[in-house]
Amino acid sequence: MRLQSKKTLKIRDKILGGPVPLICLPLVATDRNSLLEQAREVCSFDPDVIEWRVDKLDAILDTDAVLADLGALRKTIGNIPLIFTCRVIHEGGFQEIAAEERLHLNKAVIASGQIDLIDTEMSNGETMVAEMKAACRNADCPLILSYHNFDETPDEAFILDRLVTAGKLGADIAKVAVMPKSYKDVLTLLSVTYTARTERLDIPIITMSMGAEGGITRIAGGLFGSDLTFALGSASSAPGQIPIADLRKAWSALPFS
Amino acid sequence: MRLQSKKTLKIRDKILGGPVPLICLPLVATDRNSLLEQAREVCSFDPDVIEWRVDKLDAILDTDAVLADLGALRKTIGNIPLIFTCRVIHEGGFQEIAAEERLHLNKAVIASGQIDLIDTEMSNGETMVAEMKAACRNADCPLILSYHNFDETPDEAFILDRLVTAGKLGADIAKVAVMPKSYKDVLTLLSVTYTARTERLDIPIITMSMGAEGGITRIAGGLFGSDLTFALGSASSAPGQIPIADLRKAWSALPFS
Repeated sequence: MRLQSKKTLKIRDKILGGPVPLICLPLVATDRNSLLEQAREVCSFDPDVIEWRVDKLDAILDTDAVLADLGALRKTIGNIPLIFTCRVIHEGGFQEIAAEERLHLNKAVIASGQIDLIDTEMSNGETMVAEMKAACRNADCPLILSYHNFDETPDEAFILDRLVTAGKLGADIAKVAVMPKSYKDVLTLLSVTYTARTERLDIPIITMSMGAEGGITRIAGGLFGSDLTFALGSASSAPGQIPIADLRKAWSALPFS
Repeated sequence: MRLQSKKTLKIRDKILGGPVPLICLPLVATDRNSLLEQAREVCSFDPDVIEWRVDKLDAILDTDAVLADLGALRKTIGNIPLIFTCRVIHEGGFQEIAAEERLHLNKAVIASGQIDLIDTEMSNGETMVAEMKAACRNADCPLILSYHNFDETPDEAFILDRLVTAGKLGADIAKVAVMPKSYKDVLTLLSVTYTARTERLDIPIITMSMGAEGGITRIAGGLFGSDLTFALGSASSAPGQIPIADLRKAWSALPFS
């Protein structure tokens, strides 16, 4: 009943792009103890996917420490698929981290085999994207290429181009998150999602309009083609996320089954 | 947080056009016994508004009998606002009733003072609309002027024109219900709703996209400017209506408070 992806992606025991959008809960923690505490809490909500937004971590530059944290996290979350994401400030991240350091960290994490998906912003440039793609291909780790805009919602053609470009750059999943200034902007994001899904992309897509006005896209974006939605479990990673219990209640009125 | 109406309408103890969209449950019954049985069941859901779709009634041509049914219905539903609506087949109704007969019935019901709102299709023509408007004005009964299309979703300009025309013809509330063939059509209906609300109309509006694909407009149309939604209580009066309990669950994730 919803618009599904032509290509689906099996991630452990979950299907991305199938009849039901997946629900992802974020982890944002400064150290290992709080990371694992959040992870236990988040697991109690039985999410489809967990995203570790590693950029909140104090010891982000110590790659060995991050890998050790990741090992502990994997033990805590068991078989739940894990997205690893390191953002900088203008991408909605919590701290600045030099491009070289991020690439080094991302490559080490991809090679570890402990994660199921990795996300990088296309604004990092084609060279970083190409290096990430190569590392992902070697480790058989699907790559999410994303575009974020925390200031506004660009016009439909621009957002659509970001999704299509993600596909061209080798993304296994294309993602956009934009900020609305009105409910018109919310409709723009849904319309782009519909067009991307029906006319332009075969791969799974993840789209959302952020903030309070955009909340409806986190609930109903799956109808129009978005394959995963970020909800609120323990901690928020972006404005407008809805508590997972409320999201699931809302879905009881939608044809996600 | 949602787009409210500039003019609101107080109907008994309810506000149409305020911060929370109203929920209306329909009654569609062939005789008085089943009407009152449905009414009791529907009241148990505590709806904001009840609509009696009288066109299902076997004895529709006996105006005195309808008025007697109406009196019994009013006693059963107490202070819940009541919309009285008589549709013919091409308007989504259950039987054909001559225009003269309908006008006679509508006028008698308006004059009875037992109803709170009355709905008529604009396709009945300007003469009937003008007569209805005059009767409503005399009895201080708000008038809903509606446009229905059970075959398709016309383009934005056409639907918008129907809403604006309703306002020009003296509607206190303008209503459109259209059938989608795709999720694109669903977005068209939401976009029209947004434009009507923000640019063209001061009065409350009621809009929906019908069928399974349009279900999201019954849940979330209130964000974009629709002031009332029809849900499923005891019996369905149009395709795509969602059980009121599911609708309310969905609203726990929306900013309707």
